[in-house]
Formats: sequence, structure tokens, C-alpha cells
Amino acid sequence: MAYYAEPLDRLIGELSRLPGIGPKTAQRLAFYILKMSKDRVESLADAILQAKELITYCSICGNFTDVDPCSICQTPYRDKNTIMVVEDPKDIVAMEKTRDYKGLYHVLHGAISPLEGIGPDDIKIKELLARITPEIKEIILATNPNVEGEATAMYLAKLLKPLDVKVTRIAYGIPMGGDLEYADEVTLTKALEGRQKI
Amino acid sequence: MAYYAEPLDRLIGELSRLPGIGPKTAQRLAFYILKMSKDRVESLADAILQAKELITYCSICGNFTDVDPCSICQTPYRDKNTIMVVEDPKDIVAMEKTRDYKGLYHVLHGAISPLEGIGPDDIKIKELLARITPEIKEIILATNPNVEGEATAMYLAKLLKPLDVKVTRIAYGIPMGGDLEYADEVTLTKALEGRQKI
Repeated sequence: MAYYAEPLDRLIGELSRLPGIGPKTAQRLAFYILKMSKDRVESLADAILQAKELITYCSICGNFTDVDPCSICQTPYRDKNTIMVVEDPKDIVAMEKTRDYKGLYHVLHGAISPLEGIGPDDIKIKELLARITPEIKEIILATNPNVEGEATAMYLAKLLKPLDVKVTRIAYGIPMGGDLEYADEVTLTKALEGRQKI
Repeated sequence: MAYYAEPLDRLIGELSRLPGIGPKTAQRLAFYILKMSKDRVESLADAILQAKELITYCSICGNFTDVDPCSICQTPYRDKNTIMVVEDPKDIVAMEKTRDYKGLYHVLHGAISPLEGIGPDDIKIKELLARITPEIKEIILATNPNVEGEATAMYLAKLLKPLDVKVTRIAYGIPMGGDLEYADEVTLTKALEGRQKI
């Protein structure tokens, strides 16, 4: 591509390697960066480098953190008897935003997916088992309700059965604000199965 | 926001200040960056800094460049008698991709917009006038066909009239691959007015 000067071409190339950033968006971002003040550009580059430098995985739960153990594992008032198992640190953020869950987390960093060659040993299942002490009363399986997440939940449920711990799965159903008309059949069936007395 | 560790929060903040990047996308990009190799992260940050450091405006046409004059102004085989006036360096890229235009460019870096308080002195009109030597035979006005671009083209046409130079405007009409049914009335009227014998 001779359309751009080399450093601009390189920047567009780097940006378009990010997920969801196509060539057009990369070009738009690159041109915007060129028009930003030098201070803001340096601040952006520094934020990228610093995040990569300072953020590691929590040695207990696997969440992203800049202190180890992470702030959730360290908080004294959280319920240490419950562990919620999620696939990704993003899921912790989503759950924390509800302000309803006060237990601990465990990040699997993936889900079992034979198609992609991801087996039980490729995600943080060993680390979860190591955390199950008599203190732990409940494990909430909050992997995604898709093929991989379901398979992972089933696998974990079987694995945890011999241990003296209650294992639960988050509820399936119609999302709040959703519309019965547009719900798929599997979700509707699950919503019916999971009906509760009011 | 206590959901993220500070360096991660800062990165998400910096990313979400970019145009078209909302909080969700910023989060997705930040998590992706954390999972990238250290080499790739450094390469991304370096590309940002280097582009800002090395890219300047061409002192002749105002295009982004890392050499001055820019490669287009420097190319010996380009037609030095024609200048195409565009609003933005992005427009040069779009035009160059056609491989049809072999003249020079002039970037206004904006368009006249009374609503936004942008007058003729705020864009590179003086610089355009300074380039009009007897050698220049044609000025092609290729500002965008919207209110601001039209106003700018009209203003320039009037300004250039006393000078001994042909002034043209790019054609309006139905875009190729477009559909008459979905064209707006103004475009259709312009397409009809601009009809040509075949």
C-alpha cells in the first residue's frame, strides 16, 4: 500500500490486528491519533504499556489484577464459603456490576471445547479443585449457556459430585426486558422448566 | 469504578476516548491487549508513538507525510497542472485507490461551517491561493457533497473566478452499484441534471 506514509501504514496495520477493528476503522482511528495532542498520544501508549506491565493474574482466582491476591480475594467482608466459576475475567465485571453477589470467583480462562482442541487440562480446573476446602459450601457454575459452557458445567458438576460441596448452575430463562415472541425454543423450554412459585 | 484494577481501568478509559469506541468495545480491546504477547503490545504502543512522532503535514499540499514534501508532491510523473481540493487526508487515500487521478492535491483540513464557527480563515484556503501559479490549469473541487462541503466549494469557486484557471466540481449522481429506488430525491435530481450523452 503506497497510499500512506510508512509510519502511518504501520499504525493502521497494528490497529487492524485488534479484534473487531477492520481496515476502515483502523484508518479512522489512526488519523484521529495523528490529530490528537502529543500528550494524549503519549498517555494512550503509556496506558497500553503500563496495563500490560502491571496487570497479572490473581494467584488465587485467576482474575486480572495489579495486586496479588486480587482486591476481591482480599476483601475481608466477602463470603468466603461460595465460589462462582466463570469462563473469563469479563464475566466477573458483569457480575460485580449487579452488586448482588458477595462471594468469591474462579476464572477458568476458557471452556472445554473439543472442536477447538481445548480439554479439561487446558483451563484452570486443577486450580479450582485445589481451592475446595471444607470451608467452601457452594460452587456456582456460571459458565456461558452455550455448547462449550454447558459441557464445562456438566464436566465440573460430575467432577465435584464426590466432594462435600453444593454445586449449582445459574438459571436459564427469558432475559429481563426480553420478549416471549422473540425467544428461541430452547430458552422458552428452559424458562418453563425453571418456573417458580410466586 | 472498582470493577477493574487501576492500570486496566486507565487503559479502558484511554481507549474509550477514541472515536467510535464505546465502553464495551474499550473493555473488549483492553482485555485483548492484556492477553497479547509483550512483543505485540510493545509494537502497538511503539507504532502509536512513532506515527505521532514521524508524521507531519506536507508543507505544500497538507497531506500526512513522513517526508516533506510528501511523496505525491515529489513524484515527477504526476500532472503538475491540476490540483484537486479535498477536505481531509482520508479523501486523498480514497482518490488514490482509484488509480485514475494523476494530478496534485490540496487538503483544506476542514470545510466552511458557520454553525461550528469554522470560517474561510480556519481552513487552508490561503495556502491554496498561494499555490495558484500560471502553471496550474485546473482546480478540481472535491469537497464532500454535504452542506459544509457545498458551501466551501461555492466559496472557492467565487474566489478563484478572477484567476485564470479552470475550476471544476466532481459530479453528483447515483453511486455505482446503487439502486434508483433507494436514492434520495436530491441525488436523483442531480443525476438527471448531470445526464450525459452515451
